[in-house]
Amino acid sequence: MKKYTVTILPDNIQVPAEENASLKKVFTENGIKFEFPCGGMGKCKKCKVKVIKENSQEETLACQLKVAGDLVIELPKKEQKYEILAEGLERRVVLDPLVKKVYLKIPQPSLKDNRDDWKRLAGNLEIKPDLKILRELPEKLRESDFKVTLATSGDEILAVEKGDTSEKLLGMAFDIGTTTLAGYLLNLKTGRELARVSALNPQTNYGADVISRINLASESQEGLDKLYKEVVGEINKMIERAVDEAGYNREDVYAITVVGNTTMQHLFLKIQPKYLARAPYVPVVTEPIVVDAAELSIKINPAGKVFVLPNIAGFVGADTVSAALACEMDESDELTLLIDIGTNGEMVLGTKERLFACSTAAGPAFEGAHISCGMRGATGAIDHVKIDGGIEYTVIGGVKPVGICGSGLLDAVAELLKVGIIDKKGRIIKPEKISGLGQMYRERLKEINGFMAFVLEENTGTGQPVYVNQKDIRELQLAKGAIAAGIEILLEIFDAKVEDIKKVFLAGAFGNYLKPESACRVGLIPPELEGKIKPVGNAAGAGAKLALLSEKEYERAVMLSRKIQYIELSAVAKFSNVFAKKLEF
Amino acid sequence: MKKYTVTILPDNIQVPAEENASLKKVFTENGIKFEFPCGGMGKCKKCKVKVIKENSQEETLACQLKVAGDLVIELPKKEQKYEILAEGLERRVVLDPLVKKVYLKIPQPSLKDNRDDWKRLAGNLEIKPDLKILRELPEKLRESDFKVTLATSGDEILAVEKGDTSEKLLGMAFDIGTTTLAGYLLNLKTGRELARVSALNPQTNYGADVISRINLASESQEGLDKLYKEVVGEINKMIERAVDEAGYNREDVYAITVVGNTTMQHLFLKIQPKYLARAPYVPVVTEPIVVDAAELSIKINPAGKVFVLPNIAGFVGADTVSAALACEMDESDELTLLIDIGTNGEMVLGTKERLFACSTAAGPAFEGAHISCGMRGATGAIDHVKIDGGIEYTVIGGVKPVGICGSGLLDAVAELLKVGIIDKKGRIIKPEKISGLGQMYRERLKEINGFMAFVLEENTGTGQPVYVNQKDIRELQLAKGAIAAGIEILLEIFDAKVEDIKKVFLAGAFGNYLKPESACRVGLIPPELEGKIKPVGNAAGAGAKLALLSEKEYERAVMLSRKIQYIELSAVAKFSNVFAKKLEF
Repeated sequence: MKKYTVTILPDNIQVPAEENASLKKVFTENGIKFEFPCGGMGKCKKCKVKVIKENSQEETLACQLKVAGDLVIELPKKEQKYEILAEGLERRVVLDPLVKKVYLKIPQPSLKDNRDDWKRLAGNLEIKPDLKILRELPEKLRESDFKVTLATSGDEILAVEKGDTSEKLLGMAFDIGTTTLAGYLLNLKTGRELARVSALNPQTNYGADVISRINLASESQEGLDKLYKEVVGEINKMIERAVDEAGYNREDVYAITVVGNTTMQHLFLKIQPKYLARAPYVPVVTEPIVVDAAELSIKINPAGKVFVLPNIAGFVGADTVSAALACEMDESDELTLLIDIGTNGEMVLGTKERLFACSTAAGPAFEGAHISCGMRGATGAIDHVKIDGGIEYTVIGGVKPVGICGSGLLDAVAELLKVGIIDKKGRIIKPEKISGLGQMYRERLKEINGFMAFVLEENTGTGQPVYVNQKDIRELQLAKGAIAAGIEILLEIFDAKVEDIKKVFLAGAFGNYLKPESACRVGLIPPELEGKIKPVGNAAGAGAKLALLSEKEYERAVMLSRKIQYIELSAVAKFSNVFAKKLEF
Repeated sequence: MKKYTVTILPDNIQVPAEENASLKKVFTENGIKFEFPCGGMGKCKKCKVKVIKENSQEETLACQLKVAGDLVIELPKKEQKYEILAEGLERRVVLDPLVKKVYLKIPQPSLKDNRDDWKRLAGNLEIKPDLKILRELPEKLRESDFKVTLATSGDEILAVEKGDTSEKLLGMAFDIGTTTLAGYLLNLKTGRELARVSALNPQTNYGADVISRINLASESQEGLDKLYKEVVGEINKMIERAVDEAGYNREDVYAITVVGNTTMQHLFLKIQPKYLARAPYVPVVTEPIVVDAAELSIKINPAGKVFVLPNIAGFVGADTVSAALACEMDESDELTLLIDIGTNGEMVLGTKERLFACSTAAGPAFEGAHISCGMRGATGAIDHVKIDGGIEYTVIGGVKPVGICGSGLLDAVAELLKVGIIDKKGRIIKPEKISGLGQMYRERLKEINGFMAFVLEENTGTGQPVYVNQKDIRELQLAKGAIAAGIEILLEIFDAKVEDIKKVFLAGAFGNYLKPESACRVGLIPPELEGKIKPVGNAAGAGAKLALLSEKEYERAVMLSRKIQYIELSAVAKFSNVFAKKLEF
């Protein structure tokens, strides 16, 4: 076997090469980093190098070149390593999106190469031909002079487009909350976020919580259809808004990832959620679902795909999987706790070895639901309260207050507890019995609509006082008690102590706004963990983006959904005792 | 490790077993043949055995039973080994159809087993859930008390049916000829053929040969749509007729296999065949296509699948692949030749090591097309002729003749050659110049419609004479010359001599009817091969049936389509010379 020398520019590296070895082999054996995107089949034309001769130079494909003598080649300018930042958590991923594009110049047929059009396109890849594509293929190839762009997903060719359209490749990640829909438009070629849109989940017109929607869907097929159409209709509007804002078209969007709780996922797929609301609370499906966008009436590119991420159980959905992915709980050596409080409250506890999750219907109070002056965290909401000699509060948007949101309620109750206006059992103490600092606020205690209430502000945007009453405190107790009990049960199952937890990820809008001090004072989170709390914003949305941008992250989500073991609290005998205990402050 | 003895009834075999070994392991290790259809997962409930105790007996699943002491079990009556006969070729295959059914009794959900419906159904199988099935799943499971039948294909669940429907499982195999459609209804549970139907390909209204149909399809989308609708419409009628005859319903049919030449396959799939008729004659696709019956408007079970077998090249289609499969050319050590003469003539030559195929537009003459008194091999057609002192002929149906079919034409020309009425160049000799035996027939030579003709019969069903004229002889020469030349080119490429061929499979209706002696005398088939000819009937149809009944046979067809190397005769420089030489008798 003859040996030659290959000189590689611009770095001027000299490596040995056997006669007839392919340049791919030479590169691999000598640790030269160079990408052959199509695996060396000569299809993608991405591995171009220059062969430098004495009086000339010639561009060729590295994968097709075999060494037949000493050789000087020049590599193109450094390959760009795509890395992106995901919101909140500063996760970096190598860009490898769920849908990809590759521009191909395909050899034209001749009597000597009369392979069929499909084989010409797919090469030796084991891809099953799709009838819709085959029906358009012959004209597309010939009208484009056999220069086409493939949109692919996994081992499937989604679309064949004439000419080079490889720059038009967008995707959207959706977090379908019971109350709020959040959408993120991403450029899948660069990993950059182009737009962010949100909307009220229009299903709220049919009920604020998942149970009322399950009931509607259970009553009739029409009920299910209605809820499905509402959410898909709104998502289509959000897509339109996002692409408009970024200066693109719907047709440039090829992939959508969707996370949500299990009920929201069922409704989005028009799958009957009836049995989620009846013991033993089984979903129809927890596996990930990949479906043509057209089949769901999602208006993006006609060849586009929707990737609905996997759920864990009836009340721990893909949003929790996605949040756990964003927090990389599957790779953590330390014991971590994830609390995602939305309309429901879900918790995941564990390490990369073992992970457990549970769910409580604890969220609505923290979203302002069922609270006398409650409202979502929007303009006019009191979001923080401090009672310390005077009463200080902040209002979102800096306007006159019109209500109170979850974080405001939490603060208010924590402060009232601190100054002795409510006791450990959550009772508002009779004005005449209040002692110490609390005495300063006696005149703020009034009976309103039959309940004893603490007035935070009389001078409001509505003219009506904003207050917290005895009923609101009970709602907060139920919510925080459920979450605190869930944490204790998970710890017990994992066989760990509170002190063993090294990090608490607090996800969701409420998690971002709340004051850790208040959460610990009311006992929503064990006081030992106050210094370990890390708010991570919409971690579910961040996970949906990660999965969209990287096949590997998507696969991690699937693995996580299988790994996380669901604990049905209603089947844990001691849950009700723990819960009762945790109602107290 | 403790050892126990397992006694197996009714054969009273005693085998050793280690403690805790599964019965599956015990059976395997001791060579006891027993089937675990679901692989031992406890899902299919097919591996029931009786455990015999002193005072009782108990039915249990063999796959779930672990040995904990000496054990006496009784196996059910012998498992039926399904084997079927395929038409013509007496091929036996183990029944393993492209669509299968399994009846399952699924454990009901509980708080301790709250897996989702899909997981409960699919178990640990790596099957991607299908949205249509998921949408119906919860009600189907509950309405059937969790007893359902799955229809599966490969790793896909096609349908979930309430209760035990496993006995209703039919399939149809179709051979789409340019002229004739043949359909076979099979019971996929038993392998038995239930009905056989045929019809004229209604596309013949738009032209007798593939080229005229390609032209129509090329002109406009409407032309393609029309041809597609015609063939699918006729196939739907044939399905209706077949299931009626057998006493079943359309919905009992779950799988259809389709073979045909490449053009027929394109038209059946509504894929543009335009470029099949233009050099370099490339198909859009040669790979097998599996598609939902509904997508092709094929009216069988809504969950049914259509398996369109693979083609080799523009003019060697799935019908040839299928015929080669039926003849097991992929396993032949000896050199064999397959000649399939339909509207076109295709040939395959080779051994299991190497196989070559070519095609000639040689067929129509043998189907009676372009022949003055030509007709298909139907009632009234002269199908055999003997000129030997007198003139003897046979007529299909035993009626007065109305025309002549391919085998009759072949005989007539061979006999006229024998008695010296036509010469080696195919010319009808002038009556006054005929010598020898031929002189007896001088008065039968007449000029009809401007051509010299030999009258076979004046007293016919139509009142018009049935004859063979000079033009007909030229047509026959073109047809036989093309086939003979094709055989010679294939032999040359394979680097073999005529004598090396050990067997000639003659497929197609014409192949079944023709007299080998005549075929060899006119030089359609080299005379050396006369004793080696084996007519195999509609081998293409037989292959389509085999593929339907056995996944393995289907895979063999796919392998064959890749293995058989296509020879484009128009690209073989010497073809025209060989062809010119082969025109002579």
